[in-house]
Amino acid sequence: MTKFQGNTKDGTEPLPAPPPLARERIPVQKSSVCSRSYFMVVMVFFHVYILNVIALLLYVHYNNASNAVGSDLDFTSRTNNHKIAEQLNTEPPSDTRFTRNVYLPRIEGIRVGHVQKVSLAPGKMHEMRTLSLKPLLFEIPDFLSEEECAVVVRLAQLKGLTESQVMVPEGQEELSQQLNLSPEEIFHLLDLNQDGQLQPQEILTHSRVRDGIWLTPENLREIYDGLKVDQDNNGVLSMEEFGQLNSDSFQRYLLQHGVKKSHLVRNSKHTWLYQGQGAHQVLRELRNRVTRLTRLPPSLVELSEPLQVVHYEQGGHYHAHHDSGPVYSDTVCTHTRVAANTSSPFQTSCRYITVLFYLNSVEEGGETTFPVADNRTFEEVSLIQNNVDLLDTRKHCDKGNLRVKPTKGTAVLWYNYLSDGKGWVGEQDEYSLHGGCIVTRGTKWIANNWINVDPDYQRQARYQQLVLQQQESQERQPDMNADEHTGNHQEL
Amino acid sequence: MTKFQGNTKDGTEPLPAPPPLARERIPVQKSSVCSRSYFMVVMVFFHVYILNVIALLLYVHYNNASNAVGSDLDFTSRTNNHKIAEQLNTEPPSDTRFTRNVYLPRIEGIRVGHVQKVSLAPGKMHEMRTLSLKPLLFEIPDFLSEEECAVVVRLAQLKGLTESQVMVPEGQEELSQQLNLSPEEIFHLLDLNQDGQLQPQEILTHSRVRDGIWLTPENLREIYDGLKVDQDNNGVLSMEEFGQLNSDSFQRYLLQHGVKKSHLVRNSKHTWLYQGQGAHQVLRELRNRVTRLTRLPPSLVELSEPLQVVHYEQGGHYHAHHDSGPVYSDTVCTHTRVAANTSSPFQTSCRYITVLFYLNSVEEGGETTFPVADNRTFEEVSLIQNNVDLLDTRKHCDKGNLRVKPTKGTAVLWYNYLSDGKGWVGEQDEYSLHGGCIVTRGTKWIANNWINVDPDYQRQARYQQLVLQQQESQERQPDMNADEHTGNHQEL
Repeated sequence: MTKFQGNTKDGTEPLPAPPPLARERIPVQKSSVCSRSYFMVVMVFFHVYILNVIALLLYVHYNNASNAVGSDLDFTSRTNNHKIAEQLNTEPPSDTRFTRNVYLPRIEGIRVGHVQKVSLAPGKMHEMRTLSLKPLLFEIPDFLSEEECAVVVRLAQLKGLTESQVMVPEGQEELSQQLNLSPEEIFHLLDLNQDGQLQPQEILTHSRVRDGIWLTPENLREIYDGLKVDQDNNGVLSMEEFGQLNSDSFQRYLLQHGVKKSHLVRNSKHTWLYQGQGAHQVLRELRNRVTRLTRLPPSLVELSEPLQVVHYEQGGHYHAHHDSGPVYSDTVCTHTRVAANTSSPFQTSCRYITVLFYLNSVEEGGETTFPVADNRTFEEVSLIQNNVDLLDTRKHCDKGNLRVKPTKGTAVLWYNYLSDGKGWVGEQDEYSLHGGCIVTRGTKWIANNWINVDPDYQRQARYQQLVLQQQESQERQPDMNADEHTGNHQEL
Repeated sequence: MTKFQGNTKDGTEPLPAPPPLARERIPVQKSSVCSRSYFMVVMVFFHVYILNVIALLLYVHYNNASNAVGSDLDFTSRTNNHKIAEQLNTEPPSDTRFTRNVYLPRIEGIRVGHVQKVSLAPGKMHEMRTLSLKPLLFEIPDFLSEEECAVVVRLAQLKGLTESQVMVPEGQEELSQQLNLSPEEIFHLLDLNQDGQLQPQEILTHSRVRDGIWLTPENLREIYDGLKVDQDNNGVLSMEEFGQLNSDSFQRYLLQHGVKKSHLVRNSKHTWLYQGQGAHQVLRELRNRVTRLTRLPPSLVELSEPLQVVHYEQGGHYHAHHDSGPVYSDTVCTHTRVAANTSSPFQTSCRYITVLFYLNSVEEGGETTFPVADNRTFEEVSLIQNNVDLLDTRKHCDKGNLRVKPTKGTAVLWYNYLSDGKGWVGEQDEYSLHGGCIVTRGTKWIANNWINVDPDYQRQARYQQLVLQQQESQERQPDMNADEHTGNHQEL
């Protein structure tokens, strides 16, 4: 540069500037650069490339989004979707069909005894052992620390526990009356094996579900005798004999003769602990760990029931039951009933997964029993035979297939529903039948986390959208709805 | 335009051309367009965008590739990887560690009786029914048409079938001698329940595997008496009694007294049909359908054993067995043994999946039995008790858990190995025990396709790379190796 300046000072003509590097590589004639048509071509290319880049970015974005689990609008954390949700507010939710692009992963059981490592909290690994495949059941020792167990028990005590089951529910409207069923129709519904007679186990199965009273075959014999129902004394009821009974005959008989706590389906106290925003850190952390354990979208876990803490005193029990019923076409799930288009008398809690925590080590008894785990077949009727009632956790816990000993801090997880084979929740898993064996010494503290998922994908999606919209509108008017919002959760 | 032309003809100055549309939208000053620096800026942007586009294209490409099943170098169709394979030729294969990015999908069983639709050929849907979960077992009716069944049988007959098992293999080197085991060590290996005595079932289990002779408990009693082994006549052998036997005592006794075909583990004839390039269209199509059914990478299926066609005459059988053995740390798979770093006396065929085709409907008998399917537990010793040997398909087929009736064109598929929980092949599934019941009337034609996968991912990857390299070098010298190449396949 100094050389050129010197030359100019001497008054001589400046040397032509050396061609710029760019021109050495790509020779461009000056005239063509200035021509309008060349400029147009460059600009067109320029815009085409920008459009390409944008298109590719969008493609990559949506491609990844559809691959990722739980990235669907309805299943991502709501904080990321304020704008989309507001747009959707304008549409009535019942008209929307949601594209099913969420895949709910299930933990692989592999085989009974298989152990896999899981990361539930940063920097700590847990071991998860497969206990059975039917139901898909796992045990995770040290899921909770001693301190965490103590905190949960203390919080439950502070909140106060209530009886899990009142003695005999009186004055409740009979479902059969609601449905307008004739005695003949009820008879045929109860007659599971369709042999035209009601065996004791067919009566027992029904009575337990309807009245919450746990009749044993001996109790039933007593009632038959007391009411003089079984006139031919053959132990089974014919249509004629059944027709003479009123729908509440059993209840009235039992009330007259007195029902003890130990005659009930369950004998325990429980309470519910809210785990959402603002809850105790241990409860929040517990929910996070459950989310990581189940590998489900966080919003699904967050919209599920609060933590249930249960206390069994000595002599307490919970006879074998399913946490969630079968879902037929006209059944609605309790948690999504607001999003159901129809009103149906059949309702079940749609608890896809149960995570049960042992908050203390029971001195004796109190095991969780899975009487038919990994059985080759499941037949409801064969659960009660030869005077052995596998459902009875006061008498026959030792005869079931699998028992889990309550150990402080251990969690067990099982699926109450099968997969539908397409990444969503399918049929009820009948093998998930379980109960709490009688506590023979000491007391027993447990907690339950249920993950609620509607087997009807559309209903679940509509429900989650409704919740989103509600939360949105509450955020716009924070003062007006604050109490109601909290109240909703506490009541669950 | 005509107006402007008219004006020019009149000799008047032409009107200034209307500004181009582009300039209306994006006003650009002519001077700045012509400046070199502006041009440079445009060109830099231009190139940056092109690089962006290329980078994004590459990202999308490799992103998709790593998500897709079986897109790993070793598992894609070899035709797409000529160049990569040639690059890899320079490295010695044993030094390479393959990153495990292949996920082998497993078909979901859901529950026994579950039916799912599968698309195996364009424009046709098949129904696949879950028969059991342990093993994971499916039935697909009409997998083959009547004509296809006939073609496969005809091709097998043309090739010629040989006895599946010769009477008694003589002069074979004893594995125990090879391993230098003392009688004490053998005794402890055979003593499955470690009670210090050899029960008949412990002897039987061993003898069947070693000699291929199917001894019944009665045969064994006879041999004990003939050889005067069980001196205290208590039915079990002590260490002392066992020590008096030579390792080939049983064999020699049986040879002296004559062995019939029905005393063998299997009584059938079979042959192998090559399914690779150039094979009969029906055989090629069969392999394609198996690939679609199993959802495994095509190269895995293509590198598996040829089709085995088996013919059972009346009275034919195959006692219950596993198609593939357990894989311990020192076991090598037959198909990948060339890629194994160590030589091991333990070899098994590593048949991940069995697909069995019924080529005719058997008049009576000949069912495929799965004696312990969906049992709650599997104990080898309890298979033979109370004089019922569940493994015996000549006598006790009716006592097993599950039997599949041979129906022309139907395929059954099951997994002989569990998942390892990480997307690869894990442990052997003991429940995959199965056999062919005795054909009581008519004859039976079946075919087997086995998908060979090494539970050791590294060995499988090395093996596939070796095959690739071999095929590459053969393609370079096509004339020299053509015969050898074909020969390899035919011999499998």
